[in-house]
Amino acid sequence: MPSAYNPLIQDRTLEFILYDMLQIERLCELPHFEDHGRETFDMFMGACRRFAREVLFDSYRPMDQEGAFYQDGRVQTHPLMETIYPQFAELGLLNASRPYEVDGQQLPEVVLMAATAYLAAANLSAHGFGALTSGAAHLIETFGSPELKKTYMEPMYAGCWTGTMALTEPQAGSGLNDVQTRATPTEEGHYLIRGSKVFISGGDNSFTENVVHLALARIDGAPAGTKGISLFVVPRLRAEAGKLVDNDVTTAGTFHKLGWRGIPSIALNFGEENACHGYLVGEPHRGLSYMFQMMNGARLGIGLNGVATAMVAYEEALEYAKNRPQGRKFGHPASSPVVNIIEHADVRRMLLKQKSVAEGALALLLTITCFADVAAQSQDDLERRHAEQLLELLTPICKTFPAEKGFESNALAVQVLGGYGYTSEYLPESYLRDQKLNSIHEGTTGIQSIDLLGRKVLGTGGASLESFASEVKKATEAAKAAGVDARYSAQLEEALGVLAATTATLGQKAQAEPEVAFQHSADYLEMFGTITVAWQWLCMATTAQSKLKAGHHDEAFMRGKLAAAQYFFENELPRALALAPIITGFGGSFLEMQAEWF
Amino acid sequence: MPSAYNPLIQDRTLEFILYDMLQIERLCELPHFEDHGRETFDMFMGACRRFAREVLFDSYRPMDQEGAFYQDGRVQTHPLMETIYPQFAELGLLNASRPYEVDGQQLPEVVLMAATAYLAAANLSAHGFGALTSGAAHLIETFGSPELKKTYMEPMYAGCWTGTMALTEPQAGSGLNDVQTRATPTEEGHYLIRGSKVFISGGDNSFTENVVHLALARIDGAPAGTKGISLFVVPRLRAEAGKLVDNDVTTAGTFHKLGWRGIPSIALNFGEENACHGYLVGEPHRGLSYMFQMMNGARLGIGLNGVATAMVAYEEALEYAKNRPQGRKFGHPASSPVVNIIEHADVRRMLLKQKSVAEGALALLLTITCFADVAAQSQDDLERRHAEQLLELLTPICKTFPAEKGFESNALAVQVLGGYGYTSEYLPESYLRDQKLNSIHEGTTGIQSIDLLGRKVLGTGGASLESFASEVKKATEAAKAAGVDARYSAQLEEALGVLAATTATLGQKAQAEPEVAFQHSADYLEMFGTITVAWQWLCMATTAQSKLKAGHHDEAFMRGKLAAAQYFFENELPRALALAPIITGFGGSFLEMQAEWF
Repeated sequence: MPSAYNPLIQDRTLEFILYDMLQIERLCELPHFEDHGRETFDMFMGACRRFAREVLFDSYRPMDQEGAFYQDGRVQTHPLMETIYPQFAELGLLNASRPYEVDGQQLPEVVLMAATAYLAAANLSAHGFGALTSGAAHLIETFGSPELKKTYMEPMYAGCWTGTMALTEPQAGSGLNDVQTRATPTEEGHYLIRGSKVFISGGDNSFTENVVHLALARIDGAPAGTKGISLFVVPRLRAEAGKLVDNDVTTAGTFHKLGWRGIPSIALNFGEENACHGYLVGEPHRGLSYMFQMMNGARLGIGLNGVATAMVAYEEALEYAKNRPQGRKFGHPASSPVVNIIEHADVRRMLLKQKSVAEGALALLLTITCFADVAAQSQDDLERRHAEQLLELLTPICKTFPAEKGFESNALAVQVLGGYGYTSEYLPESYLRDQKLNSIHEGTTGIQSIDLLGRKVLGTGGASLESFASEVKKATEAAKAAGVDARYSAQLEEALGVLAATTATLGQKAQAEPEVAFQHSADYLEMFGTITVAWQWLCMATTAQSKLKAGHHDEAFMRGKLAAAQYFFENELPRALALAPIITGFGGSFLEMQAEWF
Repeated sequence: MPSAYNPLIQDRTLEFILYDMLQIERLCELPHFEDHGRETFDMFMGACRRFAREVLFDSYRPMDQEGAFYQDGRVQTHPLMETIYPQFAELGLLNASRPYEVDGQQLPEVVLMAATAYLAAANLSAHGFGALTSGAAHLIETFGSPELKKTYMEPMYAGCWTGTMALTEPQAGSGLNDVQTRATPTEEGHYLIRGSKVFISGGDNSFTENVVHLALARIDGAPAGTKGISLFVVPRLRAEAGKLVDNDVTTAGTFHKLGWRGIPSIALNFGEENACHGYLVGEPHRGLSYMFQMMNGARLGIGLNGVATAMVAYEEALEYAKNRPQGRKFGHPASSPVVNIIEHADVRRMLLKQKSVAEGALALLLTITCFADVAAQSQDDLERRHAEQLLELLTPICKTFPAEKGFESNALAVQVLGGYGYTSEYLPESYLRDQKLNSIHEGTTGIQSIDLLGRKVLGTGGASLESFASEVKKATEAAKAAGVDARYSAQLEEALGVLAATTATLGQKAQAEPEVAFQHSADYLEMFGTITVAWQWLCMATTAQSKLKAGHHDEAFMRGKLAAAQYFFENELPRALALAPIITGFGGSFLEMQAEWF
């Protein structure tokens, strides 16, 4: 298993984005981050990085090959998790960005995002347990009572217990309108919960004493639809009179998954014995809006998983291509020396695509997470509103671009290794399997697309697009000033024009025939996503060009960034813009097609 | 496992292509096929189809889950293969298209291709054993001595022994120039073979007595490069004095693969004890040109595997979408009834893409195989040359389009099933794993691309493109006459113009800077492949439109074909044409990029 050389993510790439391009130290001017600086950032990221490389990465393949399994009503997770999980808490990962009041480090989210990129690249499944626990505890922190915080949030942040989000039900799938799990109030204040959930990631394990589910349920008599859904803490073991007692939460089975095999996805039953206590979080019927805090965070998290999975596979493919001799230079005779396959144009095409997708999406995720920090902590209303708009607008893109383009990228990592790539003697095949989930969980690509075009773009009456355009404008001006190839700025400006025109046409169409307007939402998201990543590549090219001009010592690194930007502008952006006439052509095949015609 | 309803391929779709569109009965006008007619075709296809549905499909998942494995120096294949494999011979599959002299049925290749589509859809791995055996026996039939035919070909066609193609070596991969396996002549007439091969599909099994390898090796003193490679029969057990004796062929291990788990891919050692006999096939040093007979057949076969894998997954996704209630009609309130997901535009988009890729590629494979029959059997020189040119030109497309677009299609089949699609409770995830190999084996997509642009297009000085253009012209004229939407013909004519112009630009560039001209070969293949499938959809639309005009009873079926054609022309073809400026832009990123810049 040739993995020892894999950096997961190149440190200098991350530093280039965080410090040279985003200049995240500027966040420390905000009062919330005033204790921090590059030193504390680097210390935290460095510890996570070492842990990812030295401990977590080695556990990836064993956890993939001997995945979590169901036995006697419980889930058995891999024994390695028993030593891994406590280290998440020791590193301070579970509440790194949370405030001091809950024992957090009050680090910017962008620093946590960068640090977790290493963890996700090293072992997606192990990281998943931590990410879900953080998100669930954060929900209690924001909306829960002091008692719930004390009893459930604290052991979760402390790494003693894990947490989940329990939304999906077998009959409802993505349709949360149809959540049927019931919550019956009792005189003691708790609710009795009855219902079934499926696809609950990390829903059970054999390395912590307890699992705390943040579950959606409908209080008896609640209105139909999403406005009748409430949020509950439903622990596997409940705290009662200073002891933990069984809470009638049954692990009904695990799903056998294509990837992510180290973390179980389970079917759960609440209240088979009518003795499952649930504790209301916040007010009744507001559960879905609370859950969106976790889901929005989770969507960025899924985006990061997509980035990390594409990145670690790219590094495998790159190392292989640099060291695998095969064939001659193009057009050279058989008597000429054999070269490494990285010398072949088509292999470089595949590597450049992977590099541009993975690094471009990483830059996007970090940029948007930086906006999340500003949105949460800025004291300037205008700046905060601008950051919020960008965060909301680009969340579906941050979630989906890495999943979809990352999957293409992961397939190319397999392809670079040829026959070997198809075997489990090498790692890329497992990353391909892992990546596929990211277009499905936390809202499918179809759902993200409708969210983007509907709520985020048309729903803001164009305001969010204007915020985006202003960022692009800043980027093109900076690129011109830095002397970046002028064609890129011109292309990006043109792309923005195409996006605006396409959106306007869709907006008009939506007035009269909304279903027709929305039928190509997925293509709209693909186009918008690629334009967004092109914006990031322009920013990276600007930074690289400036460094080169200033005589930076690592010229090869900077040239690589410029070449990847060139690749993206020459190959990916034009492909995406070809979608515009398809989207606004309003071709009839989707809607005219009848089920019985297939 | 909801599979009982899966037709693998819809019978009427196959009949529509074979009889309504291609009118394959006309092949019976050729003397070679004079004994045949629709009745014998249907009898053969019907038997294969029943076997595929009633026996083979049920064995797919068990063979995927309990794959072939290595034990004590041999491979253990799934016990089900012991009953399955003899039925290949009983059905006459192994030599159905071979002449009467070798006990074949002298059926057209297109009929065999159609019949095997069901087998490949039902169980790719089981089918693989038969396809490799056929191809290997066919090599001996064409180039081998009477003794080799009697001793080795006959038991292979009879289903007693299996066969393989043994080309790849660990150090050489795709680079056959670098084959190192040695063949030392002996006074007894045989050669002593020494060397190692990898990725030998079906290279060992536990259900037949013997395996016959058709292996490439270099006779001592042979010239370097591909012109010094010879072809040998190297059996696991050799026939000697009426007995089978061990031939010093060692199974060194199996590769653990992402898919195709029912058929082992093995590492083989020849002559560890210097006692491995090989028998020269044909003349020395001509092995690679002989092998190309098998490889060209195998490339169409891989194309069919790609089609079948996309098709069977599409049928799974279609059935799920028709029966899975989730969500409301677009824009309808939560109080309105829940609908099946096939009602959602985005689900239809995903199904239409799958339908158009799978059925379009099936039509292409069958069309080209029909040309193969004409090329082999026509007595009209002009007709034969035309058919040969098209066969040669389009073989790399037939191999690659189903693999690459089929993979996109298979990913969408998973996506349609959502979370369930990611689990092995349903079948699409396994088809996704299977499909990935098709872009790798029998020449990667990169290699097919260079073959297409180099040997097949530029190498014929435009003659092959003219043959293709003449077929497209026939199709557009027929479409116009039948009253098919005129935009499709116009689009296809425009696409042909783009292809011609792109090719001319590449041809000029290749004079001066061949590496630059070839750097976008993969994009060229993608564009050309999509144009080719658009041509097929125009042909299918023409047939459907004619049937509708004539008052065909199955209107829904014909409307489905027209809707899929519309989808392809509105969505897939425009995307592909956007590649033209990318291909001829000759952007520098691939070739300027340096290994150390990544």
